[in-house]
Amino acid sequence: MSRLHLKPGHDRRVRGGHPWIFSNEIGRLEGDPEPGAALEVFTHQGELVGTAYYNPQSLIAARLLSRRRESIDTAEFFLERFEKALAYRRSLYGELSALRLVFGEADGLPGLIVDRYNDVLSLQFLTLGMERRREAILQALDQLLEPSAVVARNDVAVRELEGLPQKIELLAGKLPDELVINEHGLRFRIDVTGGQKTGHFLDQKENHVALQGRVAGRRVLDMFCYSGSWSIHAARYGAREVTGVDVSAGAVALARQNAELNFQDKVCDFVQADAFDLLRDLQRDGERFGTIILDPPAFVKSRKKLQEAIRGYLTINRRGMELLEPGGFLFTCSCSYHMDRETFLDTLRKAAQQAGREMRLIEMRGQAYDHPVLLACPETEYLKCAILQVV
Amino acid sequence: MSRLHLKPGHDRRVRGGHPWIFSNEIGRLEGDPEPGAALEVFTHQGELVGTAYYNPQSLIAARLLSRRRESIDTAEFFLERFEKALAYRRSLYGELSALRLVFGEADGLPGLIVDRYNDVLSLQFLTLGMERRREAILQALDQLLEPSAVVARNDVAVRELEGLPQKIELLAGKLPDELVINEHGLRFRIDVTGGQKTGHFLDQKENHVALQGRVAGRRVLDMFCYSGSWSIHAARYGAREVTGVDVSAGAVALARQNAELNFQDKVCDFVQADAFDLLRDLQRDGERFGTIILDPPAFVKSRKKLQEAIRGYLTINRRGMELLEPGGFLFTCSCSYHMDRETFLDTLRKAAQQAGREMRLIEMRGQAYDHPVLLACPETEYLKCAILQVV
Repeated sequence: MSRLHLKPGHDRRVRGGHPWIFSNEIGRLEGDPEPGAALEVFTHQGELVGTAYYNPQSLIAARLLSRRRESIDTAEFFLERFEKALAYRRSLYGELSALRLVFGEADGLPGLIVDRYNDVLSLQFLTLGMERRREAILQALDQLLEPSAVVARNDVAVRELEGLPQKIELLAGKLPDELVINEHGLRFRIDVTGGQKTGHFLDQKENHVALQGRVAGRRVLDMFCYSGSWSIHAARYGAREVTGVDVSAGAVALARQNAELNFQDKVCDFVQADAFDLLRDLQRDGERFGTIILDPPAFVKSRKKLQEAIRGYLTINRRGMELLEPGGFLFTCSCSYHMDRETFLDTLRKAAQQAGREMRLIEMRGQAYDHPVLLACPETEYLKCAILQVV
Repeated sequence: MSRLHLKPGHDRRVRGGHPWIFSNEIGRLEGDPEPGAALEVFTHQGELVGTAYYNPQSLIAARLLSRRRESIDTAEFFLERFEKALAYRRSLYGELSALRLVFGEADGLPGLIVDRYNDVLSLQFLTLGMERRREAILQALDQLLEPSAVVARNDVAVRELEGLPQKIELLAGKLPDELVINEHGLRFRIDVTGGQKTGHFLDQKENHVALQGRVAGRRVLDMFCYSGSWSIHAARYGAREVTGVDVSAGAVALARQNAELNFQDKVCDFVQADAFDLLRDLQRDGERFGTIILDPPAFVKSRKKLQEAIRGYLTINRRGMELLEPGGFLFTCSCSYHMDRETFLDTLRKAAQQAGREMRLIEMRGQAYDHPVLLACPETEYLKCAILQVV
């Protein structure tokens, strides 16, 4: 196996448990590793750090999959990792039909996402190293879960950084005509090949439940509603009236179908509109809501775009706060890693000041438990969900 | 009423909703306000900011109690604030016999703490402004709650900054021979005059419940256990064996009494010892625990002491991590405002590295809902409770 020797003084992060090695941290390569190949990583002093896969095209030139000398290419390796990841989810949830089974770095498998919707698996191969191990991964998943279908949702921009094309593929089996999952006793149709992400936003699972006690009898506005998860939970928890808004006609259609799957009466209404425009119009018309949900897509795709993104968050949150009744609740989220907790809170503080509303921070929630955070790898923590209330 | 005019450019924080005015932000005083007296606050441009009380001896020279021109000296004023604070708690908890009814700045009453233990009230007057309004406050509390006894737990160092002496006083009524509160169906004896803080740590209420599912069948270590809240909750949630440790003989005695109040069998054992010494001894003896709780007193009393405090947190957390079994849970807390979330996480990251343990951050919790956080006043957010697990 090839060997990667770190530059002097560049071993602190990886020895601290972080799995990434940047290209400028490589002192010396022994052997001539293929892109994607496994290599052993050593400190400058010659101490073994672990086993990684290599990609000379990426800024993150190597990612550690093991802290010892180990084959990282076999189905056996992946099976063991998957069993561990599954055991962790079982300890949290018991049996759950829709969940994230593998969350990349946090599960010791950098670059791999495995989401499970009943017996369908929706995967993301985010790195060349994982792409090259596809067969071993599929074999291990087949052995552990016997899926009826496996889809690769490789339509993600981050693959370009690895020199990989974006595409959606059916890798194995046959997709069912209709795929409906159960979440907290509610039913959601999942569009595995056409929907956003891998088909559903599993990371807000536990946050949806936090609506309980904060929507009953209220008029609710759900911005960026996608397939209606927040809206439908709000209706279940007793909202008087729910308006879900999304700019995508497909999302609105899916949200309507999901509402019909769950309720006979029409508490939920879904509207296709641009969020910024609609919030402004609602404000102009003097509309008021008891609870507002702002769960936008990642405005910050990179550190460079942070300032622009902050302005976006500031605008929607200011307008959201202005639209709240006294005592009204705001559920406001950011799923951008680059928007850290303090920056997000500062932005909310400014929004409250501009809106002239005194706000109480009831709780700052994070991502669902099946998206674990690895203490040594801050990049695994990305979702913020602040619950605020007008004092 | 006297008038305080802010210096040019020093109105942004208070206009943003923060209630403090520092002495170096005062441009001009009109009138000759007594220490503790009410005054109207204006921007440099002559715009009214609100009504505050004044203390020329404190660095925080004025604290806003109202955002308009209003009498802040009457029982009526306090009654209205107390009713609002109580309504908020009722919306969260329904009726609860032990809770923080007033959390200073976060309830629009800077410098005042009111904790309720059944029909006994335990108060803290943290500022001269509140001290001077004692009669109006007691009258309003009497009207709203008809307490059987009111105690002032004014034994807090922060009063010295306001030029106030530290003392514990019975202000009204008569204390019962025994005061026992109910928390999550468990019983705790409260020592209102002799115990720590106002007698009990109400701010960890909801965090105690997070032990559920993380202690059953396990051996549990509870460091800095005080009156045994964490230990007794752990026993209730099925811990096999619980060891509570506190340096104070009084705390250990109280914890033992509380365990006896709740259980016939002796799952909980309490030990009087120094935490740092005991953790080292347990490590030396090769002891292992399934779940460890580290809930130390505020190591950081001021920004100046932060580095020293970080070393303290680092040491106890490293030792705690070393003592955990594989899959073991660590509940680790910091109640110091100056130890912010990121610094605390960084310290935990270092501790994990030194301990050679890979840790998952399951959840970062905060203070109980009856200690609300005012978005505009970051100082109201102080408690961090990280739940970690050995991967």
